[in-house]
Amino acid sequence: MTRIVECVPNFSEGRRKKVVDAIADTARAVEGVRVLDVEMDATHNRAVITFVGEPEKVKVAAFACAAKAVELIDLNQHVGEHPRVGAVDVIPFVPISEVTMSDCVQLARSLGEEISAQLNVPVYLYEAAATRPERQNLAKVRKGQFEGLREEIRTNPERAPDFGPSELHPTAGAVVIGAREPLIAYNINLGTGDLSIAKNIAKAVREKDGGLKHVKALGFETDRENVVQVSMNLVNFRETPVHVVFDAVRSHADEYGVPIVGSEVVGLIPEDALVDSAEHYLKIEGFSRGQILEYKLRE
Amino acid sequence: MTRIVECVPNFSEGRRKKVVDAIADTARAVEGVRVLDVEMDATHNRAVITFVGEPEKVKVAAFACAAKAVELIDLNQHVGEHPRVGAVDVIPFVPISEVTMSDCVQLARSLGEEISAQLNVPVYLYEAAATRPERQNLAKVRKGQFEGLREEIRTNPERAPDFGPSELHPTAGAVVIGAREPLIAYNINLGTGDLSIAKNIAKAVREKDGGLKHVKALGFETDRENVVQVSMNLVNFRETPVHVVFDAVRSHADEYGVPIVGSEVVGLIPEDALVDSAEHYLKIEGFSRGQILEYKLRE
Repeated sequence: MTRIVECVPNFSEGRRKKVVDAIADTARAVEGVRVLDVEMDATHNRAVITFVGEPEKVKVAAFACAAKAVELIDLNQHVGEHPRVGAVDVIPFVPISEVTMSDCVQLARSLGEEISAQLNVPVYLYEAAATRPERQNLAKVRKGQFEGLREEIRTNPERAPDFGPSELHPTAGAVVIGAREPLIAYNINLGTGDLSIAKNIAKAVREKDGGLKHVKALGFETDRENVVQVSMNLVNFRETPVHVVFDAVRSHADEYGVPIVGSEVVGLIPEDALVDSAEHYLKIEGFSRGQILEYKLRE
Repeated sequence: MTRIVECVPNFSEGRRKKVVDAIADTARAVEGVRVLDVEMDATHNRAVITFVGEPEKVKVAAFACAAKAVELIDLNQHVGEHPRVGAVDVIPFVPISEVTMSDCVQLARSLGEEISAQLNVPVYLYEAAATRPERQNLAKVRKGQFEGLREEIRTNPERAPDFGPSELHPTAGAVVIGAREPLIAYNINLGTGDLSIAKNIAKAVREKDGGLKHVKALGFETDRENVVQVSMNLVNFRETPVHVVFDAVRSHADEYGVPIVGSEVVGLIPEDALVDSAEHYLKIEGFSRGQILEYKLRE
C-alpha cells in the first residue's frame, strides 16, 4: 500500500475565484498529488483545498500553495466572518494510510521551518504538532486575529511563534500548521419541529459544555417540516467514534420522546469510521482489518 | 479502479500437500493473479484455493489449476467426508470490483467450454450461471457424487452436462462451474449453555426451514463455558445483509431471554457488507460510496 497524507489548507480568500484557482493549480502541478476538492465561501471569505499524496509530495504542494497565497492575498484588504491570522490561515496534515500521526507532526514542523525561512512568515504549530498545551486549541492560537496578533507577537512572549520572525508578515500575517485526525461532518435529524430540543441535545453532547470529547455540535432548523438537526463536527473519530455519538444523541432524544429520523455524512468520511461502527453494532470480536477482502487486495 | 474477480476453486485433495501446492503454483505462475489463500482439510480430503485478478487472467489461472488437478488427482482413490463429483469439484467466480455478476456468468461459461474441450471433462453450470433452475442448487448438481453420477450422466437426460461428453472423465469425474456473490462466514455467540437454543434459532433464521433467504445456519457448542453458537454462511449479503441476520438472531435470542455475547467473521468479508451495516445502524441517508475517503483515493 502507498503511504498517503491528506492536507486541507485554509486560505483567506473566498470571493476571487482566479486567486483560489491559481493556488489550487500549484498543488495540481506537483506530480503524485491529487486535488480532491476546492471549496470557496463568500460569506466567510475563505477557501479550503483538499489534496492527497505521499507525505513528501504533499509537503511540496503545501509549500507551493502557501507561497502562491502569500504572493496573491493581502490580509489588510480581507473582510469576512471567519476568524483568521494569515493569508494561508491553517495547514493541517491528516494521516490517511500507512502514515502515523507522528509522521504528520514531523511533516508539519518541517513545513513550518521551510515556510518561515523562505517566505518570511511566522509559523505557529497547533493540535498534535503543538509545542505548548494551550496551542493544541486552534482558537487560542488565532486569538485577536491578524489585527490583534500584530502587536501581541512582538510584545507578549506567550504569543511568540514556533518558527520565524516575531513579527507578522505585513500582508500575509502568520500561518498555523498542524496535524490532526480527519474531521467528519455528521448531522442527525430529529423528528420534531422543536428547535430547542436540537439545541439542548447539541449542548449535551458537545465537548465545550462537558459532553463528548472531540465533538462540536449545534442545533439547527432544517427545510423539512417537523425535522430539526443536531449538526456536528467529529474531530477525532478514533477516540470518539461515530457510533458513540449516534448512541448519545439517541439516548437524549429518547428522553425527549423524539425519534431519530435519519442522519447524514457531509463530504468525506474515512472507511475506518464506518467499519468501526459496523464492528460495534454487529458486536464483532477479534476482527482484523486484514479480513476485509479489499484490504487484502490492496496489501 | 481495476476490474477484479475472485475465484475459489475446490479440489478433491486435502491430504497430499505436494499435490495442492502444485495446483496453487499454476495459479501463482499467472502474471497479475494473486493467490490469497490455500486451505487443506484432511477430514474432508479437500482443498480450497482463493485467488484474484482481472477477469481474463483469473480465467487463465482457473484453467491451469483445473488441468493440473485433472493430471494429479484420481477420484477412484478419493475418500473423504465432503460430497464431490470431480477432481476439480467446484469453480465459482465472484464479482469483487468493477465487475458484474453477468460478467462472472460469462466467465464461467467460457471456462466451461474450454475445460470440456481441452481436458475432456464434462462441465455443469451452477448458481447464477445455471442453465436450468434446479442447477442453481449445487447440492442437486452433485447428487449421487462421482460414483453415482457415472451411471446417471449416460442414461438420464436430466443429468446431461452443459458442456462436454455425456460421460465422466475416468479419473477426474466432472466439474461444476458457476458465479455467485461472496460468501460470508458469520457466527453469533449466545450467552447460554443451552445448545437447543442455538439449534432452534439456527433453524428459525435459515432459508431451508423458511427463515431468511440466502442464509445457511447450524447451532453448535463452543469451547467457552455457557456460550453456544449460531454458525452461519451468508451467501448473498446484498439481498440479505449482515445486519438483517444479526437483528433476526437478536430478536429470537430476546425471546429466549438470552444475550448475544459477541459475533465473529471467519475469513474474509467484503467491505461493502460492513459499510452497509454501518449505514443501517447509523441511519445514514443519501450516502454514496464516493464519500468514503479511500474510495475517492482509488478512483
